[in-house]
Amino acid sequence: MSGTRRRRLPRHVREQQIIDAAVQVFSKRGYHAAVVDEIADLAGISKPMVYLYFGSKEGLFIACIKREGELLTHEFQQAAAVEQGADQQLWAGLSAFFAHVAANRDGWVVLYRQAPEQGGEIAAEVERQRAAVMAAVTGLVRAGITESDSSAGLGEEDAEFVAHALVGAADSLTGWMADHPNEAPERITLRLMNMVWVGMRQVLAGEVWTPPAEPVEG
Amino acid sequence: MSGTRRRRLPRHVREQQIIDAAVQVFSKRGYHAAVVDEIADLAGISKPMVYLYFGSKEGLFIACIKREGELLTHEFQQAAAVEQGADQQLWAGLSAFFAHVAANRDGWVVLYRQAPEQGGEIAAEVERQRAAVMAAVTGLVRAGITESDSSAGLGEEDAEFVAHALVGAADSLTGWMADHPNEAPERITLRLMNMVWVGMRQVLAGEVWTPPAEPVEG
Repeated sequence: MSGTRRRRLPRHVREQQIIDAAVQVFSKRGYHAAVVDEIADLAGISKPMVYLYFGSKEGLFIACIKREGELLTHEFQQAAAVEQGADQQLWAGLSAFFAHVAANRDGWVVLYRQAPEQGGEIAAEVERQRAAVMAAVTGLVRAGITESDSSAGLGEEDAEFVAHALVGAADSLTGWMADHPNEAPERITLRLMNMVWVGMRQVLAGEVWTPPAEPVEG
Repeated sequence: MSGTRRRRLPRHVREQQIIDAAVQVFSKRGYHAAVVDEIADLAGISKPMVYLYFGSKEGLFIACIKREGELLTHEFQQAAAVEQGADQQLWAGLSAFFAHVAANRDGWVVLYRQAPEQGGEIAAEVERQRAAVMAAVTGLVRAGITESDSSAGLGEEDAEFVAHALVGAADSLTGWMADHPNEAPERITLRLMNMVWVGMRQVLAGEVWTPPAEPVEG
């Protein structure tokens, strides 16, 4: 174990190469149809080596979920962590989210579409990552409510509500984004902030929508 | 085929009984762990009869997805179809959606959590249903934009954007709703409309959020 042989990449580097290839193949073929041969070929690594490192196709898939999820969560949290107004932090976090998804469509397909399909430990891992993002968004919304210093009396429950709506909207908008590849991630974030944050601000300011008693004529 | 025997329920009725039982069992156990014996027991029908009607566990699951999805889509569309202001129609549709999910939690778990897990034809069926709801919501948002008669210049692309955000938010809020079982579906709808519709109205009225250049002090 002392020293390293030439021509051998460090294990960590090889693992990342295999995961890169696996994310591509899983995204393209789906979990069940994907075969380790294709992944090994694409990574330029022997199939036994893939099994040596990850144990099984499932183990490799879990490694993909963990890495892609951690990358995405990390980018969101890092962007959102720079101390400034809560709306700016949320804007920065959401921009990072949309930018990451736009640049890593394969990883997003694996995370968002394929991982929940597997249930069990894999789905639980994605749930944990989503919960971490949800907690961060809830914190920013809570801060936004506090900063607005409003008498509207919004509280913790409202912060969780807004965070659920925002995270769900952002997830769903990745579908819209796929149909509008030329839309910059920043513009998607701006549209979403305009809708949700401006709406929340109006609610804080006391403007509320109520179901009108009379039909409205356009 | 002429006449009916006594003590035999019509096939349609029996099928619905089996589907009722299957939705409960699938929701509780998950698709893979669910066994047809338990479904047959709960429905009070013999196991061979279940296979006779639905062919396989997968066939039965697809029947559950179809029925639950059609019920939900139908309730949304029927509530939203009553001609009035687009905001009222959307409010009525979303209220019906949240009320249906609150009253049919098992069906929602099967539709929203378990069906996408199966991929293939099952996931495609759910996608078709979601697309139908998305189209209806897009239509109402488009009408809302037209009714508001604004010069903000929002168009078809914006209607699709808002619809994606709304549908994603509504899906995600069913999770919040599970943690707040005493919150009335109408109140959830009001909160969502307050956030999204008021936000959209403000955008239509020309108010926009922009990422501030300077850090904001709370």
